[in-house]
Amino acid sequence: MPSNAEHLLRPKSIAIIGASDSSRGGWAQSLFKNIEYAQPDAKLFLINPKRTELWGRKVYPNFSAIGEPVDLGLCVIPSAAVVDTLTEAAESGLRCALIYAAQFGEGGDAEGAARAQALLQLRDRYGLRVSGPNCMGSLSLRERLLLYPAERVRAIQQGSVGIVFQSGGTFQYWLQQATVRGLGFSYAVSSGNELDLTMADYLDFLVEDENTRVIACLAEGIRKPDAFMASAAKALRAGKPIVIVKGGRSARGKQAAASHTGALAGDDAVFDAMCRAYGIIRCDTLDDMIETCLAFQAGRLPDNRGVGIVTFSGSSKGLMLDYAEDAGVDLPSFSQDTRAKLAPHLDAGLAAENPLDVGATVARQYQRFADVCKIVAADDNVGTLLIQGSLPFAKFDNQDPSSFADLASATQKPVLAWSRTAQNVTDEALQFQAKAGMPFLQGMPQTVRAAARLIRFAESRKLGTPTLAPMARPSTPLSAAAMNDLIEQRGIALPRSRFVTTAAEAARAAEEIGFPVALKIVSPDALHKTEVGGVALGLRRAADVAAAADAMTTRLRQSHAAARIDGFLVQEIVRGLELILGARTDPIYGPFLMVGLGGVQAEALRDTAISLLPVDERSARAMLQSLRAKALLGAFRGQPPCDVEAVVAAMLNLGQIFLENRNWLGDIEINPLIVREIGQGVRAVDIRLVPRAQAEAH
Amino acid sequence: MPSNAEHLLRPKSIAIIGASDSSRGGWAQSLFKNIEYAQPDAKLFLINPKRTELWGRKVYPNFSAIGEPVDLGLCVIPSAAVVDTLTEAAESGLRCALIYAAQFGEGGDAEGAARAQALLQLRDRYGLRVSGPNCMGSLSLRERLLLYPAERVRAIQQGSVGIVFQSGGTFQYWLQQATVRGLGFSYAVSSGNELDLTMADYLDFLVEDENTRVIACLAEGIRKPDAFMASAAKALRAGKPIVIVKGGRSARGKQAAASHTGALAGDDAVFDAMCRAYGIIRCDTLDDMIETCLAFQAGRLPDNRGVGIVTFSGSSKGLMLDYAEDAGVDLPSFSQDTRAKLAPHLDAGLAAENPLDVGATVARQYQRFADVCKIVAADDNVGTLLIQGSLPFAKFDNQDPSSFADLASATQKPVLAWSRTAQNVTDEALQFQAKAGMPFLQGMPQTVRAAARLIRFAESRKLGTPTLAPMARPSTPLSAAAMNDLIEQRGIALPRSRFVTTAAEAARAAEEIGFPVALKIVSPDALHKTEVGGVALGLRRAADVAAAADAMTTRLRQSHAAARIDGFLVQEIVRGLELILGARTDPIYGPFLMVGLGGVQAEALRDTAISLLPVDERSARAMLQSLRAKALLGAFRGQPPCDVEAVVAAMLNLGQIFLENRNWLGDIEINPLIVREIGQGVRAVDIRLVPRAQAEAH
Repeated sequence: MPSNAEHLLRPKSIAIIGASDSSRGGWAQSLFKNIEYAQPDAKLFLINPKRTELWGRKVYPNFSAIGEPVDLGLCVIPSAAVVDTLTEAAESGLRCALIYAAQFGEGGDAEGAARAQALLQLRDRYGLRVSGPNCMGSLSLRERLLLYPAERVRAIQQGSVGIVFQSGGTFQYWLQQATVRGLGFSYAVSSGNELDLTMADYLDFLVEDENTRVIACLAEGIRKPDAFMASAAKALRAGKPIVIVKGGRSARGKQAAASHTGALAGDDAVFDAMCRAYGIIRCDTLDDMIETCLAFQAGRLPDNRGVGIVTFSGSSKGLMLDYAEDAGVDLPSFSQDTRAKLAPHLDAGLAAENPLDVGATVARQYQRFADVCKIVAADDNVGTLLIQGSLPFAKFDNQDPSSFADLASATQKPVLAWSRTAQNVTDEALQFQAKAGMPFLQGMPQTVRAAARLIRFAESRKLGTPTLAPMARPSTPLSAAAMNDLIEQRGIALPRSRFVTTAAEAARAAEEIGFPVALKIVSPDALHKTEVGGVALGLRRAADVAAAADAMTTRLRQSHAAARIDGFLVQEIVRGLELILGARTDPIYGPFLMVGLGGVQAEALRDTAISLLPVDERSARAMLQSLRAKALLGAFRGQPPCDVEAVVAAMLNLGQIFLENRNWLGDIEINPLIVREIGQGVRAVDIRLVPRAQAEAH
Repeated sequence: MPSNAEHLLRPKSIAIIGASDSSRGGWAQSLFKNIEYAQPDAKLFLINPKRTELWGRKVYPNFSAIGEPVDLGLCVIPSAAVVDTLTEAAESGLRCALIYAAQFGEGGDAEGAARAQALLQLRDRYGLRVSGPNCMGSLSLRERLLLYPAERVRAIQQGSVGIVFQSGGTFQYWLQQATVRGLGFSYAVSSGNELDLTMADYLDFLVEDENTRVIACLAEGIRKPDAFMASAAKALRAGKPIVIVKGGRSARGKQAAASHTGALAGDDAVFDAMCRAYGIIRCDTLDDMIETCLAFQAGRLPDNRGVGIVTFSGSSKGLMLDYAEDAGVDLPSFSQDTRAKLAPHLDAGLAAENPLDVGATVARQYQRFADVCKIVAADDNVGTLLIQGSLPFAKFDNQDPSSFADLASATQKPVLAWSRTAQNVTDEALQFQAKAGMPFLQGMPQTVRAAARLIRFAESRKLGTPTLAPMARPSTPLSAAAMNDLIEQRGIALPRSRFVTTAAEAARAAEEIGFPVALKIVSPDALHKTEVGGVALGLRRAADVAAAADAMTTRLRQSHAAARIDGFLVQEIVRGLELILGARTDPIYGPFLMVGLGGVQAEALRDTAISLLPVDERSARAMLQSLRAKALLGAFRGQPPCDVEAVVAAMLNLGQIFLENRNWLGDIEINPLIVREIGQGVRAVDIRLVPRAQAEAH
């Protein structure tokens, strides 16, 4: 079955709809010139009802006049004319339309939305696929199709990187700089507002395409997240990394994304969690994405986490250590054998350690430097090798690439050369890079980050993607009490407690449980109990319990006269580290688990980790490891270590409970989940449930 | 009085000591060629006792043979020969020696250390100043002195940036790329191991030099921190920003710095605090330092914090919002007047908001784009303007710089143009940049960071630097009890408490104070009380107090049989937010104040802020603002707001107490300092003192 994007990216015939010198400020002409320049195999037709001849070619009044179905129509006509024109085209067999114009409802206007609806009807009726609207076209490098209205794209080289950018302008500038740096491209799509074809369709095409090995994306929002995640899973299985820059981390950035393309940016932390789950590599900047694509384009993945660094600059060594720590990159010690082999090559006073500073003598002898690098590359502790080296620059450099090529061919491990700063890259330098057989990255932090990403992708490939099983059968809503029972049955212990309806019963219950106890009001109108004084801790006498219950009733009624008060919980007081543990369904990426430092401080300190569900033991432990509060889980300041195993079990169990009940349960949160000392388990002290409808209304 | 670096950087005469074809692998010859190439006014002599003629010039056997005192000697001889040679030179009047070789004790070897000592004696006896050792020389651009052994430096342009790099190799690569980007230089020093002349001497020179307006540094450690801070204060007063990259943030990075140049990297957070105090601009990367220097080189500073951004790319707008939030940059709304003026220029659907997306129409009309930018520049809320714009690139761009120049001359505010990604910069592009009258930065996050730094430097200039007054008279060591009294007298309240010596007395004291109380053991052998179980909280009965005191005694004796136990503190229990507040003397940068989230979690969560002392009210508030825990200080989840004013007062008072007692007091720490609700003040619950000798031994 052909890909949905087949007729956009591998059309056998193309028509420029609205061919004229003036269409869209000259875009039709620019497109025509780019097509003429690149001489594709695809047939080209020009369409304009007002002309019969243009640019020395016949012009057709419409699609039916062509007399054969056309694969791709490039719409360079005003938005208002698009629907009528494409209706005739679809009736005449047009398979895909690339719409450059905007105003198809992305700003929320009714007229545009109606146009969008009409196009989707054409799709459903005739199978006409639409790329765009509000885009700047696409490039198929092997097919020599430069369907982008700027000469600049002629400089782009063919290669193994496929790109999908929602932004049409940034598309060309990024491709230009990526080409300057030595990236080559298979297909490049500016996907615009993705009315019909979305990022997922293009990803599917690129995953299927045998010439594409790396995929780069720029996104403001993910429009069909389920399809996107399915495509990402396919890419991971195919071993094709998806590298992405996505804006909308800040609150205002989110709004901007929504108003620019109508796409929801979503919760950034959940997007990050989704990327981790599917092995997607996220970059913060467009430049960083170039460095990382260069590293992946080289086609090698490490088989262990160790990174070896070779430098000839003492100050770079110090900076590299800082950047490696920032990137979470592991710089293992070299083996005894490696150290022994390195020793004779090093200047006096230099140590055979990682990063390796070879000193000034070896730095000036290129083959010897390569030989030293080979020793490091052969070390079993080293999975990825980062060696200092710049591309030749202007008239002062006359280095030969052969020593680099010698090193590259001596190992199967990824080898990245790095320079201390950015530099201009000339055509000669690009040839040097090609002959050297390794990518030359610019900047030290960018290089260690690229290495970290090679490692992470290799690990993601091994782990595969999580599969969210459909619910066996929808569960029915449970009361809070029934959920408490379920949670306890699944091994997440609750504090000893009694539910009572009067202050006097509360006092009696406290005597049965044993002092000290906590007292909590039970009321649908007191969601955050600490805000209405609905919690009293450390009560040590029956009289205190009764008094506290009365006081809570008074306070809640003061703030909310009609408040319904179901009763009170009397609970054992549990001591330990307070965590928060919750699960929720993100409207875009689906169910996820959250764990963090809990108690009143949870929200203020924002020390939380999230992962898409299902969460396995490995990711549960990784979540705990990523908390700043992780030090509190171990033995700390004379306190015994916490029962981490019980926390992990609670995470897995709560995740499972949430998944089973997600059809009616919007949000479940245990705060605090008190972690007791090792062997003593956890206690779910306060459990908050939000049914689905209510959670979605927030 | 001439600067200490005068004879290095403005010598009237130079001698190459060890002139030969082979010295130091050809360095002597490279230096000679660079000097010949640049044709300085300074006289040049060659010295080599084994030659009489070289490179068509007379060679002198030694300095006395020259018959006149020489300003600068370039030592291109082996380390072992340096002391004898320079002794003769100093006797003959040599004023400064530039030593390229290493092995002057930086690795800790005795022979090298003896050489270093001998050189310092020559300095003290004859006034011979030394630059290096273990460096690669310096450049004086106006004086046309290229005293660096590589042709590459000939490309460097004259301008207003002075640099001091401890690393000689990175020096040339950074200068090369900085030159490619359009930075021009006054003086550039690779300072090496700074045996005699240190960064402070070079900074003083650059501050005095009227042609230098911006200073860039690469440092591994600050060797004479007091002198460095004094120089930084002078630079700030002169309005010359110091921009610095400093490694050694990570533990291993610190070690590497120490072994590379023998400089101590110090505590990175204290270095950061020092930078803030002196208006020093710290960059994380060498590339970032280029962007920031370009922004400062333009010579404009903003007079308010507001940043206005103009773009013609919707996706860039979204990304810029994210990057601005990361950099803490304030993007104010435009005034009513500005919005009204902008409206007619914008494409349909675009808002007159900040960042301003002008849309595709205006983007293609350069003068109109400039006019729109002028409207934004005229807005009083905007102090700095960031406009999208790339330098022309290769054959596809033919933009004219005049519209940029028109904008630059229409405002006195800083205007930075920015591109979405890095790009090659050609000579033609550099000319374009010069004519445009504004710097063209590469990359969006780099640009907002540069803007943030212009703003911070302008504010630092206004605030000036703190002056650490010398102690009026040394104070005498105080006992813990006397310090408690002093702290209380200065307005930092302590909980009600009694010191007692027996368990029975503790029980009685508790009854006087009122329950609940806390009990703490008083013992010099129980520094961290929580680790030995030396604290009991929430005791509500006299019998419990007595029992807890007995239990503590038993536990401490179990862990430390000979422990001295002075007695017990019985204290009122205070409820509120737990902070930690401390002061200490950093061995490199001096006294500083620290505040953060307190209690047992303080160390694990590392949510702390530090500032060099003295701390004024403004910086005390800024410290609190920088905490993640700041949300806990305000009204939070139904709790009343904390008494922030009392915290600020406690910070100022503790800082003052520490400064007055710093001759004997190494470290003072209040943990927890409990902040009660607004109007209720703070309570210093636990005060820990470490005398100076003991603090320094750690």
